[in-house]
Amino acid sequence: MAIPPQVGGMDIEAFRKHGYKVVDQICDYYARLNELPVVAQVEPGYLVNDLPTEAPKEPEDFSLVASDFQSKILPGITHWSHPRFFAYFPAITNFESILADMMATSVSNPGFNWSCSPACTELEQVMLDWAAKLLGLQEKFWNSSKQGGGQITGAASESAIVATVAARERCLRMLSLQGAPEVDEKHGLSLNGQNDTSVKTDELGTRINDADGDVDDTIRDKYHSKLVMYGSTQTHSIGIKAAKILGLKWRSLPTFKRDDYALTGETVRKALEEDEKKGLIPFMLIGTIGTTSTGTVDRLSEIGQVLKNHPTVFLYIDAAWAGTALAVPEHREALQLDAVNEYADGICTNFHKWGLVAFDCSALWVRDRKVLTNALDVTPAFLRTKHGDTGLVVDYRNWSLSLGRRFRSLKLWFVLRSYGVEGFRAHIRKGVQMAAVLEKRIRESKDFELVTPRSLALLVFRLRPSSGDHTPEQLNELNRRLQELVHAEKDFNMTQTVLPGEEGQPSIDCLRFAMGGLRTTEEDAVQAWQIVERLGESIIN
Amino acid sequence: MAIPPQVGGMDIEAFRKHGYKVVDQICDYYARLNELPVVAQVEPGYLVNDLPTEAPKEPEDFSLVASDFQSKILPGITHWSHPRFFAYFPAITNFESILADMMATSVSNPGFNWSCSPACTELEQVMLDWAAKLLGLQEKFWNSSKQGGGQITGAASESAIVATVAARERCLRMLSLQGAPEVDEKHGLSLNGQNDTSVKTDELGTRINDADGDVDDTIRDKYHSKLVMYGSTQTHSIGIKAAKILGLKWRSLPTFKRDDYALTGETVRKALEEDEKKGLIPFMLIGTIGTTSTGTVDRLSEIGQVLKNHPTVFLYIDAAWAGTALAVPEHREALQLDAVNEYADGICTNFHKWGLVAFDCSALWVRDRKVLTNALDVTPAFLRTKHGDTGLVVDYRNWSLSLGRRFRSLKLWFVLRSYGVEGFRAHIRKGVQMAAVLEKRIRESKDFELVTPRSLALLVFRLRPSSGDHTPEQLNELNRRLQELVHAEKDFNMTQTVLPGEEGQPSIDCLRFAMGGLRTTEEDAVQAWQIVERLGESIIN
Repeated sequence: MAIPPQVGGMDIEAFRKHGYKVVDQICDYYARLNELPVVAQVEPGYLVNDLPTEAPKEPEDFSLVASDFQSKILPGITHWSHPRFFAYFPAITNFESILADMMATSVSNPGFNWSCSPACTELEQVMLDWAAKLLGLQEKFWNSSKQGGGQITGAASESAIVATVAARERCLRMLSLQGAPEVDEKHGLSLNGQNDTSVKTDELGTRINDADGDVDDTIRDKYHSKLVMYGSTQTHSIGIKAAKILGLKWRSLPTFKRDDYALTGETVRKALEEDEKKGLIPFMLIGTIGTTSTGTVDRLSEIGQVLKNHPTVFLYIDAAWAGTALAVPEHREALQLDAVNEYADGICTNFHKWGLVAFDCSALWVRDRKVLTNALDVTPAFLRTKHGDTGLVVDYRNWSLSLGRRFRSLKLWFVLRSYGVEGFRAHIRKGVQMAAVLEKRIRESKDFELVTPRSLALLVFRLRPSSGDHTPEQLNELNRRLQELVHAEKDFNMTQTVLPGEEGQPSIDCLRFAMGGLRTTEEDAVQAWQIVERLGESIIN
Repeated sequence: MAIPPQVGGMDIEAFRKHGYKVVDQICDYYARLNELPVVAQVEPGYLVNDLPTEAPKEPEDFSLVASDFQSKILPGITHWSHPRFFAYFPAITNFESILADMMATSVSNPGFNWSCSPACTELEQVMLDWAAKLLGLQEKFWNSSKQGGGQITGAASESAIVATVAARERCLRMLSLQGAPEVDEKHGLSLNGQNDTSVKTDELGTRINDADGDVDDTIRDKYHSKLVMYGSTQTHSIGIKAAKILGLKWRSLPTFKRDDYALTGETVRKALEEDEKKGLIPFMLIGTIGTTSTGTVDRLSEIGQVLKNHPTVFLYIDAAWAGTALAVPEHREALQLDAVNEYADGICTNFHKWGLVAFDCSALWVRDRKVLTNALDVTPAFLRTKHGDTGLVVDYRNWSLSLGRRFRSLKLWFVLRSYGVEGFRAHIRKGVQMAAVLEKRIRESKDFELVTPRSLALLVFRLRPSSGDHTPEQLNELNRRLQELVHAEKDFNMTQTVLPGEEGQPSIDCLRFAMGGLRTTEEDAVQAWQIVERLGESIIN
């Protein structure tokens, strides 16, 4: 029987023609982005009801498809790259990322081990070292240390799951090697009757008490339901979601307005001791550098000190948003870089937020790569390769949830070269400075107040009329009305948050202004603020 | 303080210029792909040792970067799109996918709920319905049914984890609602003293005995360590990896050469009854349509019948490779489409393998979308939106591990329109026919044999010299030598596998020929075969 001929699909010259056109369309898009409504002006079902219900039988010309992208897709896009997008956090894209993704797809390969994609594996290794150095992470986190290392995942949520699995296995392995934990009134949980000494580190700070190999089922069965992971009320929901996915216990620790919602060492200490006395086993704590609600930085050096007495706890730092600001030396102290370098077992930051790289590019570093491979390596015969077997190369599938892996490091490479360290820093500084301009306006306004101090490029504020007495509930009501009016604006976009009140007081409804967009000008920011101010006045009057 | 100016980065006109050039470079790449070595001719460290150890301080011109892509990255690429790539399974890319990824990145948005990306959410809903219909999946799996539904994940491994979490929570919820399981000698495990009747389905086949809401910790603590998931010795390692990640028990069921390594209903029945009598609780079984080693299809209709007596078991179908061949009506019976439609709770196929869409595009459908949202929905205040709260829209983050989500459905849209159903089918038929051509050659060869029957476009064969007596061990030795010689070839690439022998016999070393590449011609296939044949002869002599 004859081989059937190809039907449909584009050939090289058609690609050249359509490729040029798509480049032009993208140029047009960015040229007019400023005039588009920030938020998609469509109702649910707009596209579901507009498209055919099944694929066409015969091939269609790509010109039709490209023109449908313009007429059907673009109107349904909320433009996260819009100069006046101030919602959530920035999710930047840029031309470097577009070209990188295009080139990555052109050499598409599943990247699951070195051998099937050497360039993909090695560029990721080098780029994560570039990124670690850019942010001031010490050698123990670098791939070149051969002890710690970094990788790119698809999202901070994925990074958190990876870290939680690693932390769980590390803890179970400790329990397996060192016998049942004992609880000592003075020191809390200890392993093998020894407390501090159970955490031995080598010259790079890597813990060396973890042996390789799988944890025995009897250990897992005995302890799984006793394991607890911790975060604060301000930890991103990816923490509780990781716990839910893995069927593990999560405990949210309280934070207080008086601490600007930072998790403190004392709160951690109390909770761990309480739980250990109950026979529970703390295995992970998520500390945050730049919480989603308010950009708060947890008190990591206090927490790190406390964890010295709790060797089963893996300290994971979620710096999804603010981590890229570590590139700027003047922010490192406030962001507690020293504590990260001293205490963190793992840290994640999303270059795809403020960090100039298009989604997806979540960087995850660990101090000890063995916590990943111990938890995630299953190598069947058909995936064995000469280089992998000898341990000469990193096979990233053993560091991750998935086997397949996109060539995401290209984006980071293109961006870091096209901006340089100085360009990257200038971008971060620009976002911070823009927020500082608005901060001044809010402080000078008589009817608004900052609810928490500005954190880098993030402002959390609310309407608080200077005249008249308002109960906390009334203030919340005013601010919820303001939120509604703000959401109805097409010309900019921002989101809300709810913060815990002082003890015994109701929670606090706020608005959030997240600066840092690549295309945002001072004028864009000030105009948006002026609209908010006017809407606020309209509510007061 | 003044806002600092942007440093580095590309403007619109620079993007136009570099964009055109990159399009041209991609055209050149495909024009000369046939002449490149299939496997990257580099040694470990080739790139790590070549690149600077940190990011440049100042911005670099993009021309330098683009030229480094050519000189440093391309040599380290194993070309999965090469016409003579026959290893693993095909991982196709095409021009439609390149353009789609480029456009997706140009409107980069994190896609975590409807409101932040309406087009991204709705196109995914519609495309998964197009794809379901293309493959012959019934209405219960369609998004438009509002009961089942489909989504795109990044890899079959991710799909398997999602399904396992959903299956675990479904089982625990059943136990929570219906009391402790009882084991009945005759029927195995039953819930609430009732067996068959505990699985009620509505007119679309959706099980309706699952209530919403979280499973209580006491239930989880009691049963987590008793839960078991199943696959066969031929199930892809993503099964055991999902179990490992989630800290759950995995049991590999035996398969036999006499069944061509298909998992049978009888094997499943025995194992489930055995385990239930031990007090274990089977909660998931992975059946495979097209195993990785040999392309075997498990006996799904037998297994489905058996599972009627085991209501806690979620039947998950891993059709990562062969699922896209369901598009071709003449293969549906062998691929057991009817059993999928009748019994499967979830099914996954990777369009990014044989299915013409560039990595990543793993399609995952479930019969009951509530198993996903029950397991994966955690919605904090700052992610609540008007439309999401009213249940008007799908928020895909509640169907997935991660919050962030790339705009992957564009690739599927572009491909299905540019090829049409007929073009897609022609492509699958071409791969199958190509393998049939080689199958004939192997059958006619005196020194080679097929180890298992051809499965679609996959051939598993080995050297078996017609002259001289060889023990099984000697045959394996010959085939391992052949594997080594084959791996040293630059002009094509194929992989090996090891299969269980007959009972009491050693395992069997084989080679695999995976056809189905977009650019493979009959000549490419035959040439590769001729080289293998010649290498085989050189070993015999």
